[in-house]
Amino acid sequence: MKITVAAVLLSMMFVGANAQSLKSPDGKFEMNFQLKNGVPFYNLKYNESTVVEDSKLGLRLFKDTSISFASEITKAEDAKFDLNNDFVKVSEKRDSKNETWQPVLGEKKNYINHYNELAVTLNQNSTDRSIVVKFRLFNDGLGFRYEFPQQKNLNYFIIKEEDSEFDFPTDMKAWWMVADYDSQEYRYQETNISEIPARWDKAFESNASQKLIKNAVQSPLMLKKNGKEPLYINIAEAAVLNYAASHLEVDAQNFKFKTHLTADRQGAKGYIQTPSVTPWRTIIVSPRAEDLMDSKMLFNLNEPTKYTDTSYIKPTKYMGVWWEMIIGKAQWAYSTADNVHLGVTDFSKLTPNGKHAANTTRVKEYIDFAAANGFDGLLIEGWNIGWEDWFGHSKEYVFDFLTPYPDFDIKILNEYAHSKGIKLIMHHETSGSATNYERWADQAFQLMNKYGYTSVKTGYVGDIIPRGEHHYSQWTINHYYRIVEKANDYKIMVNSHESVRPGGESRTYPNYISAEAARGTEYEAFAGNNPDHQTILPFTRWMGGSMDYTPGIFQTKLDYYFPGDKRFVKTTLAKQLGLYVTMYMPLQMAADLPENYAKHMDAFQFIKDVAADWDDTKILSAEPGDYVITARKAKGTENWFVGGITDENKRGYTVDFSFLEKGKKYEATIYEDGKDADYIDNPQSYNIYKKQITSKSKINFKMARSGGFAVSIKPVK
Amino acid sequence: MKITVAAVLLSMMFVGANAQSLKSPDGKFEMNFQLKNGVPFYNLKYNESTVVEDSKLGLRLFKDTSISFASEITKAEDAKFDLNNDFVKVSEKRDSKNETWQPVLGEKKNYINHYNELAVTLNQNSTDRSIVVKFRLFNDGLGFRYEFPQQKNLNYFIIKEEDSEFDFPTDMKAWWMVADYDSQEYRYQETNISEIPARWDKAFESNASQKLIKNAVQSPLMLKKNGKEPLYINIAEAAVLNYAASHLEVDAQNFKFKTHLTADRQGAKGYIQTPSVTPWRTIIVSPRAEDLMDSKMLFNLNEPTKYTDTSYIKPTKYMGVWWEMIIGKAQWAYSTADNVHLGVTDFSKLTPNGKHAANTTRVKEYIDFAAANGFDGLLIEGWNIGWEDWFGHSKEYVFDFLTPYPDFDIKILNEYAHSKGIKLIMHHETSGSATNYERWADQAFQLMNKYGYTSVKTGYVGDIIPRGEHHYSQWTINHYYRIVEKANDYKIMVNSHESVRPGGESRTYPNYISAEAARGTEYEAFAGNNPDHQTILPFTRWMGGSMDYTPGIFQTKLDYYFPGDKRFVKTTLAKQLGLYVTMYMPLQMAADLPENYAKHMDAFQFIKDVAADWDDTKILSAEPGDYVITARKAKGTENWFVGGITDENKRGYTVDFSFLEKGKKYEATIYEDGKDADYIDNPQSYNIYKKQITSKSKINFKMARSGGFAVSIKPVK
Repeated sequence: MKITVAAVLLSMMFVGANAQSLKSPDGKFEMNFQLKNGVPFYNLKYNESTVVEDSKLGLRLFKDTSISFASEITKAEDAKFDLNNDFVKVSEKRDSKNETWQPVLGEKKNYINHYNELAVTLNQNSTDRSIVVKFRLFNDGLGFRYEFPQQKNLNYFIIKEEDSEFDFPTDMKAWWMVADYDSQEYRYQETNISEIPARWDKAFESNASQKLIKNAVQSPLMLKKNGKEPLYINIAEAAVLNYAASHLEVDAQNFKFKTHLTADRQGAKGYIQTPSVTPWRTIIVSPRAEDLMDSKMLFNLNEPTKYTDTSYIKPTKYMGVWWEMIIGKAQWAYSTADNVHLGVTDFSKLTPNGKHAANTTRVKEYIDFAAANGFDGLLIEGWNIGWEDWFGHSKEYVFDFLTPYPDFDIKILNEYAHSKGIKLIMHHETSGSATNYERWADQAFQLMNKYGYTSVKTGYVGDIIPRGEHHYSQWTINHYYRIVEKANDYKIMVNSHESVRPGGESRTYPNYISAEAARGTEYEAFAGNNPDHQTILPFTRWMGGSMDYTPGIFQTKLDYYFPGDKRFVKTTLAKQLGLYVTMYMPLQMAADLPENYAKHMDAFQFIKDVAADWDDTKILSAEPGDYVITARKAKGTENWFVGGITDENKRGYTVDFSFLEKGKKYEATIYEDGKDADYIDNPQSYNIYKKQITSKSKINFKMARSGGFAVSIKPVK
Repeated sequence: MKITVAAVLLSMMFVGANAQSLKSPDGKFEMNFQLKNGVPFYNLKYNESTVVEDSKLGLRLFKDTSISFASEITKAEDAKFDLNNDFVKVSEKRDSKNETWQPVLGEKKNYINHYNELAVTLNQNSTDRSIVVKFRLFNDGLGFRYEFPQQKNLNYFIIKEEDSEFDFPTDMKAWWMVADYDSQEYRYQETNISEIPARWDKAFESNASQKLIKNAVQSPLMLKKNGKEPLYINIAEAAVLNYAASHLEVDAQNFKFKTHLTADRQGAKGYIQTPSVTPWRTIIVSPRAEDLMDSKMLFNLNEPTKYTDTSYIKPTKYMGVWWEMIIGKAQWAYSTADNVHLGVTDFSKLTPNGKHAANTTRVKEYIDFAAANGFDGLLIEGWNIGWEDWFGHSKEYVFDFLTPYPDFDIKILNEYAHSKGIKLIMHHETSGSATNYERWADQAFQLMNKYGYTSVKTGYVGDIIPRGEHHYSQWTINHYYRIVEKANDYKIMVNSHESVRPGGESRTYPNYISAEAARGTEYEAFAGNNPDHQTILPFTRWMGGSMDYTPGIFQTKLDYYFPGDKRFVKTTLAKQLGLYVTMYMPLQMAADLPENYAKHMDAFQFIKDVAADWDDTKILSAEPGDYVITARKAKGTENWFVGGITDENKRGYTVDFSFLEKGKKYEATIYEDGKDADYIDNPQSYNIYKKQITSKSKINFKMARSGGFAVSIKPVK
């Protein structure tokens, strides 16, 4: 007995000295930090079960060199030793927060940020350098990051690799995508963790810009521990600023993941000057998939915005001169030339190719339709000179973002659009040539201000220039935010394509309203998307911010345009409508051609009615890879919208409308798959009807294969 | 007889079909071009002797890939095959020019551009692509380049290597420097070509930014064929625009050199869009070293300027708050901090290091002295925030080029300088961070306009950012010219340090008035310069443009400042004066501290008097590595200046003043080494006297070891 007590006391002292415990506000999560022989570890428990086993932390640094220059005082650069061992705990600091904040655009009026925090300061003996590991434990999981205080022995260092591990006790189902420094446009794979290596080589196709990392996967990564008490787990990162984006190396046999940062061409993974912090590594955990999807952790981990004026940031429903080029009906380029020199070539002397969609006449047709149907904006791609040879040539001065083609009257078209109550949306395809874009950005934004454009879609198709940087390198991520900050100076909203996936940074940069940064609708016209793709994205790509998925394709089969063409959008029409609710899109596109909507104005009515900004959101039911059913309340109104989608399986679902206000009468307009609808055989079969409902109502939906439904609900006056 | 005639006829036909001959205007040079089995070759003869044997031409390209993107018409990229074989001659075009043009700033009022030209169009059979090889043969040698016309089968390509060879028949003496993608700050070596590999590993020290190419050397490269009829030969390149700078690989056993372009981090050596031309590869040849040094070929090969206003471009004599930092007496940085964040750190709260030279009080002292002594400008380094951690940290946002230190009053100092008739010279050290400089350049130049700065010294100390580019890569060279062109928009002259060496581009960009781009005076305070260094530079670094050598050190021994310090400038004081004439410097620094000049105002008088812009120049006598004696006539005056310098050997030289106008009387002020002067033991021993001279006069000078002399001559009224 005596020995036991002593042992317990000793172990408690030991734990107290080298281990710290943190609990979530509701007490269900527990995080334990400890040093084992000077090496830092953390673990995570939920309801006293281990979710994440002891997992290592730390960073490896490049040995640096210092060169003496004249008489300047030079300090020998830091880090002969990696920052991953030989630590002792110096101090700890605890904190907590419980705040409610309002996103400028969001899924709910209020987001709740409630956590307990533990910051452990570690000192490395041999080098006398300190770092801080900071943990925030929320009621839906853990975030942690490293902090590097400014100090005598740590001023500058170059990261060779960050080694933050996520060690799981058992195999789990995973929805994953191959790691790539340059693209996220891959299909999700659904396998156990242990099966990732076997599947990896088959899990990708070629891409315009590609640097694959074998046996590694991208984040956000979705996991599920099956069994008696299933647990849904999501690994992601938040506040990825002045730092490279991280992938996850997979130790499939040990169910372990480890951070793998995006390198630059020199193999360096980060150039750090103290004081500095890393992004937050997040582990969201929930027994309910719906609650995990609903988590706002990534946004909560970002700093509040410092913008003094956010009034120009508005939800935007738009159409676009875009899909007809994606499918191949029209071209971005104006002429038949294949070699143009900006500032030299006289575009008015080139031979038009006859397929240039961004011409004044065609654009006016789009404007007419968009305006007549209540849209806010019209995106036009291919308006500016340079598309003839824009891609695949490593051409640095590829666009000037200023000069329209001869058949695009920028002045007239903006006046025309404004007279009809809509704004044109600017397009800045950079072709990956970021240095060129930065050179033109001020003039390009001034042009936008001059003609009344308030938002821009940027693109980064192709390898990045500076050559050797990647789409998710530290340098390129800094570039994206330089552009976003400059855009704010001009009161411009930004939607970036082929850029890094967001980690909640829209809290700090609210004009960064959307991004693509995943495989979107356009891929339906390329290699195709899997029918379950849209049931996975909300659990992955959406965790850190909205995606510009550009849905709304009514004419799903492309043989309509090109006889014999086998391409088709792999959903029913009704599912396309459902996406407007299951996907949170403050920047929301109706992507099809006006003529296709004109043939289905009844179905189109849902897209016209659905909101893009919300006071409330309820994930009614969702399972990654299977289905998503969501209800949302439009901001400043009593209107609700419900959307449901399924994967390649038919599926029934009963919507319980108990989220509606009790005692109120509502009129619901229901859009659903027809009885014989099918995403392959009969995608355009749908049924629309109205029904009076209350909070007591229930409606059963039968979704077709890759089908769905949408409901718009307004109070009966 | 019959067979012989037939053979001759046949061979003539063969030559006519596959070989072309070009002669210089005076007929002394002959260039022969031919295809041998489809591979292009050229040779060069002087006075019917072979100077350059049949040497190969051509380029190797990267195999490229084309990726189909949606419906865009993509052409399979060109160049499955290298552009170096399988050619037939399609056509030839001959031309000639004999023009006189006036440089904005120059060594003579008129430069003569006189050549015969041959352009051979070659078509590559298997790929149906054409290139042009263009030759210009001057009375002092050959220039040639490749041209890539815009055509169906050649639009974009990526160069793997250019393989232009220079095959000499015999071993020759060479004055060479190790090849390096990032620095030319090395000592020259004087060995035979055959001895280059044996010397190579001993021919360099470490440098702030360095990427050495083993057994390759830099250009301009100086050669001499010894023997009965010595021949001086120089290999260089002109008009290096939108292309990487070239080094020269050495085949020491065969006395052969081959171009080796500066790569980027991906190993690519050029991204080319047709129509395009390469730089000119130049081979200047003369039996007289003096005539070779005098050659204007590199300037002649550049395009005339398109600038509409060059009136702001003026010769500039300046002093600088600079040398005291170089030797270690003062610092660029203001504070003791070693980690600063621009835009965040409050510099007024930092602890001053007490050694910051660029403070208002000290600068006024320099202004007073410079103004009192008739200088045009004062350079001030260390005026702006960021110097505390400017170097060695790969810090991208390292300077803002806008914000002065708390002790530097930019407004007051400019007003003060202007009130005394001088301008301040701006300093933009970029720390190699070219992307950062481009971001600030407009605002930085606007600041210069606001305060009345008309010229800027730029610097590129350290590795280039974009990381992975080199100082002489295509990208970085384009950067230098973006800055120069932008500076012209603001009517600003540019002097760039650590940049690429010029190849005559100042003809096209006359505001690019100087550059360092070689080992200058500052190295006397680092590892030291060889005493013959300045007798080689005019045959190498100067061939394509002026160097900002920053001479004029009177206090050559640095133990004057730091007892026990062994560093010293390895020349006599009189040689420092001679440099102002032997080196052409339209931007001309008196680099020492005012207090040192104050102690030798008699010698300083020469620096005050010497001009920087010239109507005429006569290289009286010169031998690479040994001595240079030059006479120059100041622009718009009848004043002449003569300068002479020697290497580590004492040397006598008799100046024949026959270049003066006959029948005119002149007063000469002579500055020469004292009888017992010596660059090590007695550098400050000098003698000054006046003498009346005419065109019939001769004066014998006895130069000390690494000594020299200077003469200023004005007509007697």
